[in-house]
Amino acid sequence: MASSTVIAVDAMGGDEGLSVMLEGVARARRRFDEMRFILVGDEAAIRDGLKTHPNLTAASEIVHAAGVVASDDKPSQAIRRARTTSMGVAIEQVKQGRAGACVSSGNTGALMAMAKLSLRTMPGIDRPALAALMPSLGETDTVMLDLGANTECDTRNLVQFAVMGAAYARTALDLDRPRVALLNIGTEDQKGTDSIRDAAAQLRAASHLPLSFEGFIEGDRLSRGVIDVIVCDGFSGNIALKTAEGTARFVADLLKRAFSSSIRSKLGFLISLPATRLLRDHLDPNNHNGAVFLGLNGLVLKSHGKANALGVENAIAVAAKAVRDDLSRRIAEDLSNFEAKAA
Amino acid sequence: MASSTVIAVDAMGGDEGLSVMLEGVARARRRFDEMRFILVGDEAAIRDGLKTHPNLTAASEIVHAAGVVASDDKPSQAIRRARTTSMGVAIEQVKQGRAGACVSSGNTGALMAMAKLSLRTMPGIDRPALAALMPSLGETDTVMLDLGANTECDTRNLVQFAVMGAAYARTALDLDRPRVALLNIGTEDQKGTDSIRDAAAQLRAASHLPLSFEGFIEGDRLSRGVIDVIVCDGFSGNIALKTAEGTARFVADLLKRAFSSSIRSKLGFLISLPATRLLRDHLDPNNHNGAVFLGLNGLVLKSHGKANALGVENAIAVAAKAVRDDLSRRIAEDLSNFEAKAA
Repeated sequence: MASSTVIAVDAMGGDEGLSVMLEGVARARRRFDEMRFILVGDEAAIRDGLKTHPNLTAASEIVHAAGVVASDDKPSQAIRRARTTSMGVAIEQVKQGRAGACVSSGNTGALMAMAKLSLRTMPGIDRPALAALMPSLGETDTVMLDLGANTECDTRNLVQFAVMGAAYARTALDLDRPRVALLNIGTEDQKGTDSIRDAAAQLRAASHLPLSFEGFIEGDRLSRGVIDVIVCDGFSGNIALKTAEGTARFVADLLKRAFSSSIRSKLGFLISLPATRLLRDHLDPNNHNGAVFLGLNGLVLKSHGKANALGVENAIAVAAKAVRDDLSRRIAEDLSNFEAKAA
Repeated sequence: MASSTVIAVDAMGGDEGLSVMLEGVARARRRFDEMRFILVGDEAAIRDGLKTHPNLTAASEIVHAAGVVASDDKPSQAIRRARTTSMGVAIEQVKQGRAGACVSSGNTGALMAMAKLSLRTMPGIDRPALAALMPSLGETDTVMLDLGANTECDTRNLVQFAVMGAAYARTALDLDRPRVALLNIGTEDQKGTDSIRDAAAQLRAASHLPLSFEGFIEGDRLSRGVIDVIVCDGFSGNIALKTAEGTARFVADLLKRAFSSSIRSKLGFLISLPATRLLRDHLDPNNHNGAVFLGLNGLVLKSHGKANALGVENAIAVAAKAVRDDLSRRIAEDLSNFEAKAA
């Protein structure tokens, strides 16, 4: 299976530009010897950029696409010119079986719309969801979905996200029976919207699934490591994820201020530098980059628009693991198992 | 105006019990010489608890109420026995003009329902909103609303929250023209739900209001100090607030881990202790306690269920400032000004 080790990369997407994308892919190439890449975008620019990455050149094929999706393009506009853009052509490599997965740092809404149109959703799935791994105090990361692909979600969407998220946690985190909870504004049964309460009732009843449904979780416990899969609509998920990012940076900024407030604290800072570096690494979003669209007939990964080369490398690593684990097949199995019992 | 310096306290609400509430009120009493209190709850228990607070005893009146609202009571249950509970009777003190504001650490949903039923909303207001002050990197705190009182909100609710939140920022933060933004999952015009987009259009048009509407803000910028009033529905607001709380604690826990990872880093920690203590104080939710229900004919404040004595003291301080600033009147003025121009 040649396609199993090939990753298609939207070389033009993202805020940091082509050179950061190529640097990231080159890092991934050094980390995974056997991997091959299809670099999609402006051929001349990519060829030029590859001059400083001879090692990557040998492992890459360039597929030309003249157009680029801008970060403020509406998804509806973007899909009309999908076939001419680096994003659309990168997704097409997955559809044609030429690549096992595709990675883009571009516009999330456009990526979702194009991927859905090109690859179609799995049988029974209304909407794909964007799932990411978040740092936690537990032994593994935490899967969270949806993270912005679907602004409003009904009960059926939330239940499907739970099943798909659990399948993802089983492969990505090697858990037999992930603990799943719905994000809510309280843990009591009557809290939240009708959709959330009804989704909880359905998940509670679905005891044959390879997951343990734990009810509701509130925002203050997301990173405690007590739940493996956190399920929510894309609006709340985006708010929670970005608020967590912003708060981590806020605390780090306050810490910097505190450390530079006196000579004594500066000294303490210098002495604890190795420890605070560990902390910084743990919280760096680039170390948790690579969100997967779940529920499509093919693997598409979203890398953060502001990801640096390390971030791009990590997104490619997540893509490679998903290909190796045959994530799409495992999700399809869990879904059909769920639907069969529910019917 | 005797009522302007009197605060009614639901002495029985909250997870930490009567003694913490009384300790908090006693602290407030020491901080504000002229303040008087109506302590509502089980008379014998309060009288007993006051034995260790002779200073508070002199400044307090006890009003007996046998019932307590539990943290898991449904609002609909709670309001049926409002008149017999410490929460309901504390609110009643405001309605009767015996107190300028009421403070409770009890069940938020019940507090909202009882306050609305007893005090009624201001003319034209469909729903009151819960507003809190959050720490930021800016020169002042940031007002955020709604924080859980209203799970789902329409355009009109969001616009009213913006007007009320700005009025609150003008008094609480002494700002002439607060910068107001709607919490959203992107800053581009097409992002978010219909309600959010329509609310943005209405606020953009309302240039006669004493606020500067700045469009949308994403979760990662809530604490940057670039916006003074962040407006959202109660579901998103609760998720954002609790995620911020949880992430701050998460980072602090990681920092603790990092500092204790080696003898060297432990030494660094000890040296920087005064600096990290400043940070801890800045982030302690007890230092930002006291959320106000805006849009009612009377002041009701929610103290965090887990607030300690310092937190209760701060909630009472926020209540006292709102009474002194005549917050309800200023909000009513801004609302009627807004409605007059919009009509």
